[in-house]
Amino acid sequence: MELLKNVIDFATARKLLLENLKPVERVEEVTVEEAVDRVAAEDIASDVDVPPFSRAAMDGYAVIADDTAGARPLEPVKLRRIGVVHAGEMPKQPLTQGTCIQIATGAVMPDGGDAVVMVEHTELDEGNETVHVYSPVRKGENVTKAGEDIRKGAVVIKKGETLTPGRIGALAAIGKTKVKVYEKPKVAIIPTGNEIQRPGENLQPGKIYDVNTYTLASIVKIAGAVPVIYSIVPDEMDQIRKTLDAALQNDLVVFAGGSSVGERDLIVRALENAELLFHGIAVKPGKPTLCARLNGKIVIGMPGYPTSCLTNAYALLLPAIGKIARREIQLKRVKARAGRRVASTIGRLQFLPVKIEGDTAVPVFKESGAITSMADADGYLEIPENVDIVEKGEEVEVVVFL
Amino acid sequence: MELLKNVIDFATARKLLLENLKPVERVEEVTVEEAVDRVAAEDIASDVDVPPFSRAAMDGYAVIADDTAGARPLEPVKLRRIGVVHAGEMPKQPLTQGTCIQIATGAVMPDGGDAVVMVEHTELDEGNETVHVYSPVRKGENVTKAGEDIRKGAVVIKKGETLTPGRIGALAAIGKTKVKVYEKPKVAIIPTGNEIQRPGENLQPGKIYDVNTYTLASIVKIAGAVPVIYSIVPDEMDQIRKTLDAALQNDLVVFAGGSSVGERDLIVRALENAELLFHGIAVKPGKPTLCARLNGKIVIGMPGYPTSCLTNAYALLLPAIGKIARREIQLKRVKARAGRRVASTIGRLQFLPVKIEGDTAVPVFKESGAITSMADADGYLEIPENVDIVEKGEEVEVVVFL
Repeated sequence: MELLKNVIDFATARKLLLENLKPVERVEEVTVEEAVDRVAAEDIASDVDVPPFSRAAMDGYAVIADDTAGARPLEPVKLRRIGVVHAGEMPKQPLTQGTCIQIATGAVMPDGGDAVVMVEHTELDEGNETVHVYSPVRKGENVTKAGEDIRKGAVVIKKGETLTPGRIGALAAIGKTKVKVYEKPKVAIIPTGNEIQRPGENLQPGKIYDVNTYTLASIVKIAGAVPVIYSIVPDEMDQIRKTLDAALQNDLVVFAGGSSVGERDLIVRALENAELLFHGIAVKPGKPTLCARLNGKIVIGMPGYPTSCLTNAYALLLPAIGKIARREIQLKRVKARAGRRVASTIGRLQFLPVKIEGDTAVPVFKESGAITSMADADGYLEIPENVDIVEKGEEVEVVVFL
Repeated sequence: MELLKNVIDFATARKLLLENLKPVERVEEVTVEEAVDRVAAEDIASDVDVPPFSRAAMDGYAVIADDTAGARPLEPVKLRRIGVVHAGEMPKQPLTQGTCIQIATGAVMPDGGDAVVMVEHTELDEGNETVHVYSPVRKGENVTKAGEDIRKGAVVIKKGETLTPGRIGALAAIGKTKVKVYEKPKVAIIPTGNEIQRPGENLQPGKIYDVNTYTLASIVKIAGAVPVIYSIVPDEMDQIRKTLDAALQNDLVVFAGGSSVGERDLIVRALENAELLFHGIAVKPGKPTLCARLNGKIVIGMPGYPTSCLTNAYALLLPAIGKIARREIQLKRVKARAGRRVASTIGRLQFLPVKIEGDTAVPVFKESGAITSMADADGYLEIPENVDIVEKGEEVEVVVFL
């Protein structure tokens, strides 16, 4: 693996990463209730006509349209009411000339009937036998024909569509209870470093708790994938290589990042047979981010500082996992006013954690290693490469932590 | 229950509904890994100092700051290198005047040391014994003191905060493995109507598949709550009352809506002892939406047409569940151009399902009962009460289906 002498810009890094990722192809079947937010892995056609029968689109009277010709308020057409059909029932008799059947929205049209007069345009005489129709209807008026909405055999959901609540409703409408969706991608998270310990254990002298694994696992979940968390790997080459080999069975491998040069070097060396996509991005923080391809899989080395890891996970990892999961993940951006003047470096994109107070984005960044910035931040400012100063009160865009 | 003669405007309906909902108070303990997107039910203070020890913030040499006074490129200070300390290790010896210890970012500062000289400002002689320091450091420079980031006892996460990935990382940083969060609210969904059947069954004559239950259950999940789906209730008063009574044990009760006047009337009658908040909203579609309070719980009757149910679930139900779940749910809005001229009614808010093609929002609405509109739509236009025409090509805002 040849090390890049120069860092690349963020947009190029993101593009390179996304281009080299392959969407998951594995398919599983889930129930329609579980399928919300999943991605359809097949075209789904209807086995039934929707509606399955011709039905009334309004409450009123099923009629023979021709019978109503010329009806007007002063000269209503009088029709004999021969029955009632509620939603969910079958009509008990057909319509013949001069008759009508009271009908509810959604109820089956009786044989012979070809239109529905809205109840508002009628009056029922006191004996409940004769209906006065004050307005004519055309053939087919206020009637939804069988299959008019969805014809049997028609494709209702297309392969690759995300199953939003509306589409889940559409699947129910055609009677489906199961649906084939793409599997959620599996994302390996490998924590490295002699200095880190799992939360919950008593801290040994010189050690700190592992942070990035838990941040990253949360990002992976939000992106619609499954985090596969490996045990903490000490800074030993053979152990890093062994874990990396095992982790390549997943769809994406992420090193949760070491913060010292030595730890970085070990990960770089473990990837010496890999094809390097980039090592070093012109971004602050997050410069040491690393990306390589090994055995057809992408391996990402996240920056080790917790805040760097967090913001770069939003900016880079979230869209990457979205690509594999076949979901377009859009970061949520809101406008705000900068809470103070912020300096940045020309040529380097800056991610600055902020707290949103009213319409003000207040920077909460202390230093890359600080945990309080992560706990306090509601999102981050992106200060573009060509901006060196953001003035206090200037309008800025905040990427909101999801 | 007194029926409102007049419909109310949408903003008032939404406000009334939200004002009358109570956030869930029940608390459960979950693992930190499971806690992403949940809401903290307690202030969480740290049991440890972060960092737990004074540590190097840079790779370089731990020194006694006073020893480096006056160092400059032409007159470097020479210090004897007496050891190395890696991250995760304890220093083997203290620093004394004239000595230094090579130190990695994150490693424990040796006793006696009070600053770190960055490796970039030094040179190691060939024998690896003497370090040339080219720049002085102040006391504390490049050192993070124990507890500087988080003091033992300090509150890191506040009650009511949503546990974003950054906050999950912060919990890991203070060694937490479990966290108390508010329970997800339980939302009862009651399907009603003699005409509907569960998907998967063979359709009986005159029947259709239940759609709204599945749309609503998906919305409930997206909002961060748990749908509790009741069996389909036929249009019989005692059965509706019985199911309603049972469903009141949940945090919110939603009737999945009947589309005919008769079905609506039954739900209204079942709520005759309830306090009516509103019945009828000046919105198209979705006018017959109903909201009442019974035994301290809110009961919502959704409009029965599938498309009406869907759009009103986004506009009204999603924020309502968010309030109970203590999460602020913001609908995602994107700008687009209207794909065709659309007429609307002054005085009535309109929700129009659209498909997004490039930057164009193409209306896909056929009729309120149509399923294809739901399957094809990517979101909906909100046409305000005071607008009667949206011209083709006009800039509009689309609420995107999540």
